[in-house]
Amino acid sequence: MPSNTSVIYLKHPVEFPVVGEHLAAKTVQDFKPVLKDGEVLTRNLVFSLDPYMRGKMRDPSKKSYSPAFEIGHPLDARGVAEVIESKNPKYPVGSIIHAFVGWEEYSVVPDLPTTRIIPGARDSGLPLWSYVSVLGSPGLTAYASLKDIGKPKAGETIFISAASGAVGQLAGQLAKVWGLTVIGSAGSDEKVEYLIKQVGFDHAFNYKKQSTREALAQSAPKGIDIYFENVGGETLEAALDALNKHGRIIASGMISQYNTTTPYGIKNLMQVVAKSLTMRGFISADFHEQYFEEFFKEVRQLLLDRKIIYKVDEAQGVAAAPEAFVGLLSGKNFGKQVVQVADL
Amino acid sequence: MPSNTSVIYLKHPVEFPVVGEHLAAKTVQDFKPVLKDGEVLTRNLVFSLDPYMRGKMRDPSKKSYSPAFEIGHPLDARGVAEVIESKNPKYPVGSIIHAFVGWEEYSVVPDLPTTRIIPGARDSGLPLWSYVSVLGSPGLTAYASLKDIGKPKAGETIFISAASGAVGQLAGQLAKVWGLTVIGSAGSDEKVEYLIKQVGFDHAFNYKKQSTREALAQSAPKGIDIYFENVGGETLEAALDALNKHGRIIASGMISQYNTTTPYGIKNLMQVVAKSLTMRGFISADFHEQYFEEFFKEVRQLLLDRKIIYKVDEAQGVAAAPEAFVGLLSGKNFGKQVVQVADL
Repeated sequence: MPSNTSVIYLKHPVEFPVVGEHLAAKTVQDFKPVLKDGEVLTRNLVFSLDPYMRGKMRDPSKKSYSPAFEIGHPLDARGVAEVIESKNPKYPVGSIIHAFVGWEEYSVVPDLPTTRIIPGARDSGLPLWSYVSVLGSPGLTAYASLKDIGKPKAGETIFISAASGAVGQLAGQLAKVWGLTVIGSAGSDEKVEYLIKQVGFDHAFNYKKQSTREALAQSAPKGIDIYFENVGGETLEAALDALNKHGRIIASGMISQYNTTTPYGIKNLMQVVAKSLTMRGFISADFHEQYFEEFFKEVRQLLLDRKIIYKVDEAQGVAAAPEAFVGLLSGKNFGKQVVQVADL
Repeated sequence: MPSNTSVIYLKHPVEFPVVGEHLAAKTVQDFKPVLKDGEVLTRNLVFSLDPYMRGKMRDPSKKSYSPAFEIGHPLDARGVAEVIESKNPKYPVGSIIHAFVGWEEYSVVPDLPTTRIIPGARDSGLPLWSYVSVLGSPGLTAYASLKDIGKPKAGETIFISAASGAVGQLAGQLAKVWGLTVIGSAGSDEKVEYLIKQVGFDHAFNYKKQSTREALAQSAPKGIDIYFENVGGETLEAALDALNKHGRIIASGMISQYNTTTPYGIKNLMQVVAKSLTMRGFISADFHEQYFEEFFKEVRQLLLDRKIIYKVDEAQGVAAAPEAFVGLLSGKNFGKQVVQVADL
């Protein structure tokens, strides 16, 4: 093990993080960690980059659901990794595990309850990135929040923002499987074309070319019943106006508000009162116990049967991770962002 | 029946309604209606004025949960009335009924499903205004939304805005009965004193003298678990910041936003995502079937046992109704606003 390249967290960003200033790749030569009992050394294969990580780039004194990143240490992420040295009998050498790893080539992984072996990972017929995306936390987010908060009924209409992203593309396909009319917004013509021609959305539009308000008036003249919220701001305002009585807002994320010191003011929240709307936030961990098993089984089968597809945007190598993350925050990714570190 | 004074709806207001321009009292001489089958003629005793009525003062082409008032006709309200002429065997002459009546002395009431006889109204030991306030729709609103949306647990903390109003004063007392710490805001020192000394709130403050943000930091240093929302705007923003993880917002009303063409922009809705909050609007009719019986029984007994109190602000006579309604919209009322029309 001659060297280990890691992405180190350097400084809390105020608005968008800048590569080199707030996070940067760094290589350590002769990486030879000494494991404590319970720990394993992993060779990381792929890890996930997600918008929620921006919330961890903060002063640790500001509380939130997820602990802050530590300055001077590697950032972490859900990853798929091979155990290459083990002081934990649960994870023998050669196991393929799903765990929190650093944004790096090799990690020392402590014995956390969130670590688990992926059975049959070597020959499941599914790419390894599946386990940190469509079959991982973003997938569970889409599945469980759509069921638990969206309460979808066949014949209803759902609008999904950031629809080609990690959560949106699965949410849209599940909604189709469950009999809904699906409308999506995305930030490029290429993404819109993908949503309509390949994913099978009923309607999709490029929010940079057409206002959400206008697009919803055209594609959902009778209003929408569910809004799958990933972006916030003006899109949320337009959705609030378009929602029908007893509509549901799945508050999964508000990426337009993560990197700004001048947040957008939502002026029509009165619609929540006027139309008896429900808006609910969540974290996917809240749903794990109730939904993980059925989610994994159902979505895995839909993937194997090719009834749903899933697009990832793969950055190649740890050193590419910082740029990929900053790109993700402004929608440069096309599909769910992952970092491919090594082959199995 | 020599004359009938009614309040007529004249014009849709843009911001605050103005007495004489948008609504005005008018007296008809020799009022002698001819009843159709199913109708009754009522002598109105008391009726309720509520903020939701502002939402009915709109162009009927704008849809909302409650039909718009009709220009040229009397406004309507929930009232308690005596049947003085009847073409409906369900409501014989002499019955005391709870029905939608005009803002007027005498009304012709059609056979609507919302009409019902109040059993024992003449000698229940409770004033007649009870049936349009603490035991009527505002009471059901407080009881059912607190249970169904607030999901209160003993030991939690609730913050209630417009806390001495129709809904707030009952919500606060029920929360106390159910073991919560109760904080309220109101718009005058007199109301604050009433909440603390007579109603038994744990904390109360005058939002015109102290910011909600500062008051909540003092009275709820560990945060709040439920926000009973009656006002909107900056108060909602402060509550969003003060809510704990998995907090609930009962979106009962947003009175600060009813009479303005420049609504306040809520800049921290991101808290819904960050803290897994739930915000839900409703109309009390949605709760009627599930909750009315237990609500009526429980709250009536609490009133008879003097374990809760309830304050009304009684305008005297139909002609006083327009001013009372406009006053209600700016918080001039102290207690739930009703109009006393006649004695039993």
